[in-house]
Amino acid sequence: MPIVTIQVTREGTAPDRQSVTAEEKAALIKGASELLLNVLNKPLEATFVVIEEVDTENWGLGGLPVLEYRRQLAAKMK
Amino acid sequence: MPIVTIQVTREGTAPDRQSVTAEEKAALIKGASELLLNVLNKPLEATFVVIEEVDTENWGLGGLPVLEYRRQLAAKMK
Amino acid sequence: MPIVTIQVTREGTAPDRQSVTAEEKAALIKGASELLLNVLNKPLEATFVVIEEVDTENWGLGGLPVLEYRRQLAAKMK
Amino acid sequence: MPIVTIQVTREGTAPDRQSVTAEEKAALIKGASELLLNVLNKPLEATFVVIEEVDTENWGLGGLPVLEYRRQLAAKMK
Amino acid sequence: MPIVTIQVTREGTAPDRQSVTAEEKAALIKGASELLLNVLNKPLEATFVVIEEVDTENWGLGGLPVLEYRRQLAAKMK
Amino acid sequence: MPIVTIQVTREGTAPDRQSVTAEEKAALIKGASELLLNVLNKPLEATFVVIEEVDTENWGLGGLPVLEYRRQLAAKMK
Repeated sequence: MPIVTIQVTREGTAPDRQSVTAEEKAALIKGASELLLNVLNKPLEATFVVIEEVDTENWGLGGLPVLEYRRQLAAKMK
Repeated sequence: MPIVTIQVTREGTAPDRQSVTAEEKAALIKGASELLLNVLNKPLEATFVVIEEVDTENWGLGGLPVLEYRRQLAAKMK
Repeated sequence: MPIVTIQVTREGTAPDRQSVTAEEKAALIKGASELLLNVLNKPLEATFVVIEEVDTENWGLGGLPVLEYRRQLAAKMK
Repeated sequence: MPIVTIQVTREGTAPDRQSVTAEEKAALIKGASELLLNVLNKPLEATFVVIEEVDTENWGLGGLPVLEYRRQLAAKMK
Repeated sequence: MPIVTIQVTREGTAPDRQSVTAEEKAALIKGASELLLNVLNKPLEATFVVIEEVDTENWGLGGLPVLEYRRQLAAKMK
Repeated sequence: MPIVTIQVTREGTAPDRQSVTAEEKAALIKGASELLLNVLNKPLEATFVVIEEVDTENWGLGGLPVLEYRRQLAAKMK
């Protein structure tokens, strides 16, 4: 009876996308459920998966909102 | 000082509703707070309740997004 | 398919107990599941309940660990 | 590698605001990350901060949705 | 910068084990991180995985603690 | 009425300690509560803080349990 919670920033994986697609979400659900089946022998039916998309201004890293963190990291890399 | 977190899919309990209503949310908050009072003797004032509504495409069960899971289950039942 | 998470301090409801008892946990699980059935018509089978017991030194309120908070509150009440 | 999750009601801190501002969120992220650095010596880079804004009708206290709780409390205080 | 939280009951996958083994935990961490890499192109370094083991008396299903639920289900199946 | 959840690995900040000390936890509780007061004007009384200590074998990063991740990182740095 596992519960897998996946928290990601609300962003697309391609320039023309604003968020995770329904297909990508289905792949996460399938993959997480199969992982619990393969590693701990939990039947697929027993696993709940919850995906939480978090707005980028609500996600922090390195003491900064994530988009600002990436900007500063990119600037340092130049 | 309990915290009760209730995660449900964002769906209505009747065909013409898209989500949990404010009345239903108030009933969940009241019921969860009274449960902690009755079982563990926690005063109503001490309990926080947080309701999280999760889009159906973000909720997985049986390795599938929940609406697809229900479709396949319904098909099997025929 | 709701998930109900109940976080409480790891304390007994009587002087001779150090923690929530198995009977009290069973009552929380039963009550939370019935609440979702009554309010949102979710079948008992569909609801997961997870109880998290938190050590009192890991729980804060009013800027203080909870036992210290209660001590100061009790002193003020005298 | 700490994770700090901050749950607040979706409300503004001034009458003309409907929610937490981006500046306030950045201050929460900075403050939480510095707290972990100062107290536990965790490098800023190691800390994730996630802010969750919860609609007021989804937040309960004293057995009531929070706005109703405040209304009743204000009435008692008169 | 995803966070994956995996909640499972504290049980072994073989009769002589009382809990998830370190090897199984490492496999869950590896699998969850690779899933985020494969589906959303998130670098392994960016993903945090947290495994929470929950005592069986703290996990409820069908309105019952999970071991009692399984007992009743097994009895029905006879 | 904010809730701040702080998840850290169960480790000491000095070689002779196995976990976060009670003093460090009190400092986290105080700091987190003051942060919400300073940034969002939330009264200290309104903020709950919950600290979750996670065993190092239950925390993953870079696709590895955290201690193994640090070992490989240290080896690369030589």
